[in-house]
Amino acid sequence: MSRFLAACRGEEVDRPPVWIMRQAGRYLPEYRRLRQQAGSFFALCTNPHLAAEATLQPLRRFPLDAAIIFSDILLPLQALGVEVAFSENGGPRLPAPLTTPQQWARLAPSNSWDSLSFVGQALAQVRRHLPPEVALIGFCGAPWTLACYLLEGRGSSDWAQARRAAYQAPEELGRLLQTLGQAMGDYLVWQVRAGAQAVQVFDSWAGVLPADLYQALVVPALQRLLEQLEGLGVPRILYLGQGQHLLGAVRHLPLEVVSVDWRTPLAYAAQATGKGVQGNLDPAVLFAPPEEVIHRTRQMLRSAPPRGYIANLGHGIWPETPVEGVEAFLHAVRESP
Amino acid sequence: MSRFLAACRGEEVDRPPVWIMRQAGRYLPEYRRLRQQAGSFFALCTNPHLAAEATLQPLRRFPLDAAIIFSDILLPLQALGVEVAFSENGGPRLPAPLTTPQQWARLAPSNSWDSLSFVGQALAQVRRHLPPEVALIGFCGAPWTLACYLLEGRGSSDWAQARRAAYQAPEELGRLLQTLGQAMGDYLVWQVRAGAQAVQVFDSWAGVLPADLYQALVVPALQRLLEQLEGLGVPRILYLGQGQHLLGAVRHLPLEVVSVDWRTPLAYAAQATGKGVQGNLDPAVLFAPPEEVIHRTRQMLRSAPPRGYIANLGHGIWPETPVEGVEAFLHAVRESP
Repeated sequence: MSRFLAACRGEEVDRPPVWIMRQAGRYLPEYRRLRQQAGSFFALCTNPHLAAEATLQPLRRFPLDAAIIFSDILLPLQALGVEVAFSENGGPRLPAPLTTPQQWARLAPSNSWDSLSFVGQALAQVRRHLPPEVALIGFCGAPWTLACYLLEGRGSSDWAQARRAAYQAPEELGRLLQTLGQAMGDYLVWQVRAGAQAVQVFDSWAGVLPADLYQALVVPALQRLLEQLEGLGVPRILYLGQGQHLLGAVRHLPLEVVSVDWRTPLAYAAQATGKGVQGNLDPAVLFAPPEEVIHRTRQMLRSAPPRGYIANLGHGIWPETPVEGVEAFLHAVRESP
Repeated sequence: MSRFLAACRGEEVDRPPVWIMRQAGRYLPEYRRLRQQAGSFFALCTNPHLAAEATLQPLRRFPLDAAIIFSDILLPLQALGVEVAFSENGGPRLPAPLTTPQQWARLAPSNSWDSLSFVGQALAQVRRHLPPEVALIGFCGAPWTLACYLLEGRGSSDWAQARRAAYQAPEELGRLLQTLGQAMGDYLVWQVRAGAQAVQVFDSWAGVLPADLYQALVVPALQRLLEQLEGLGVPRILYLGQGQHLLGAVRHLPLEVVSVDWRTPLAYAAQATGKGVQGNLDPAVLFAPPEEVIHRTRQMLRSAPPRGYIANLGHGIWPETPVEGVEAFLHAVRESP
C-alpha cells in the first residue's frame, strides 16, 4: 500500500510521505546528462523513454514516496492549437499570445490528447518500473495560471495584463478559464487512464488575484476541472502559489489536498480548508548547512496536522540546490515522528 | 488640519483621506514631459526644483490629501557608499552587489545626508507650496527590501539569493539589516527636519519571507528604524508587499499605520495588527470602465475600518494607467461615506 495515497485520503500512516516538486530536475547531475543527451528540454519532454527516465532518476537516488511525470504545464496548450516555444534560457514563450477576447473565444477545448501520446507512454512506462508502494502523480496547469501565459506569452512577476483582463473583461475571461478547466480535467482523466494514481493541479500564480476575484472567476473553472475526476478514486492536489488569502475560496472544491507555499502555515491551511495539506519547506532552506535543514524540516513536521499531510517543499526545487540539502531534508522526514 | 494626519492618528474624519502610491509618475503626461526635460530619472530625482515639481504635479490635477516626495528608495544607498545606476529601462542596478558577509560587514551606517541635500531642499520647497491641509510624506526602503537589492544587484521576482542568505548566514544578514535600519531611521528623521510630516517605509519584498524568519531577522531592524522617530509626532506607515502572513509579526512595532496590498483584506489587517490601515485597491482595477472602478472602490471603502483608514492603491500605480481610472477612484473616495 502506498503511504502517499493513504495520506492523501487522510488515513493513518507510519510517517508522513514525502516527494519534492520538480524532483526530476537540474540539481541532479544525472538529469543534466540526460538533458544534454536529449539535446533540449522539449526533446526530453516529448520522448517517452527519456521522459520516463527523467521521472525515475530521483527515485533511484532518494527513497521518495511518489514520482511525478516529467513534463511541462504548457505542453497541452499545443493540443489546443497554441504554439509554445521552449527556449533553453529564459523559460517558455508563446510566440502568439492571445490578447483579445475574440482570440480567447476561438480557443477550443480538446478531447483528443493523441498529440501528447508521449506523455501517456511515459506514464505507462514509469508505472511498470515503479515499486507498488511508490505512487505516480500526473499533473496539469490550473486554468488561471495557463491563462496568464496565454495572455502574456511569457513569464511575469505580477501578471499585469492578465489582472487587467480580469477587471476589464471578466465574463470573456471567465469563459476562457472554463474552456481551460474543461480541457485540463479531460487531460488529467486521460493521464489517469495511462497510469497516474494521483493528480496535481498547479495554480502557481493564483496569488496575484484578490480572493473575491479568484472566487468569482477561477473557482468555477477549477470546479469544472476537478469534478471530471470524481469517482476515479484518484486523489486531487491543488498547488496554490502565494495563496494564503485564497484558502477559504477553495474550501468547497472537490479535491483532497491543498499544497501550500513556504509562507502559508500548514496548520492554518488545514484548518481553513478542511483538506489534507502538502508542503511547505522554503526551497532556499536546502542551501543551509545540513543541521539547519534538519532543524527547519523538523520544525515544519511539528507544525503539520497529524493526518492528511504530505511532506514537500513550498515551491519547485531550485536548479542550484546542493544534493546534501535534499538528503538532509529527506532524512529528517523519514526519521519522524 | 490635515485629514490625512488625523486619520493616521485614528481620529474621526469627515471622509477617508486619499493619496496614491507613485502618484507622481509616468501615467501623467505632465510627468513624462518633465522627465524628458530632465533628461533622465536620476537627473529628475537629484534636481530639487524638478523633484519638487514632480511631487506637486499630481496635486495640481487631483484633490489629493497628501503628497509624497519624488525620490527613489535606492538613492540613500549612495550615501552609504554603494553605487546605484538608474537605467532608463529595466529599473535600477547595483554594478557591484554585496554578495558576501564580509562585504555586508563593511557597509557603514551614515549619519550624514549632505550628499542627498537635493531631497531636503525638495521637501522644503514642496512644503512651502502645499496648502496646510495637504500633508507631505517622506519615505525610505525597509531594511529587508534594501538588502534584497544590495545582495542581488537588480530586481527579482523571488529574491532567491537574499532568501538563501537568510538561511545560510542569518547572523551576518541580521547585522546588515540592523545597519540599514539604523541608517534609514536617521534618514527619515533628517527628512522630517526638512519638512516631512509623515513617513512611509516600503517593505515591498517583505512577502518572500515566511513569518518566523521575518520576525527573527527583519522585525528587530524595523524596530531600530522606527523607534528613532519616536516623539517627533510624525505618523509612521509601513508598506508590506504580499504581507498577509506577516501582520502578526509587525503588531508590536512602533508604527501607526500598516499599508497592505490588494490581496490582504483591510479589515483583517486592522484586526491582526491593531493599527491604522492604508490601501488597497488593485492598481489593475483602474483600467476597468469608470463605473466598475467606482463599484470596486466603494466595495473597498465598505470593507475598511471606520477609523484609522487611508484610501490608496495596494501597490504603486502602473505607468500605463488611464487618467480616467484615477479620476473615478478619487471621485468614489471623495463622495463617501
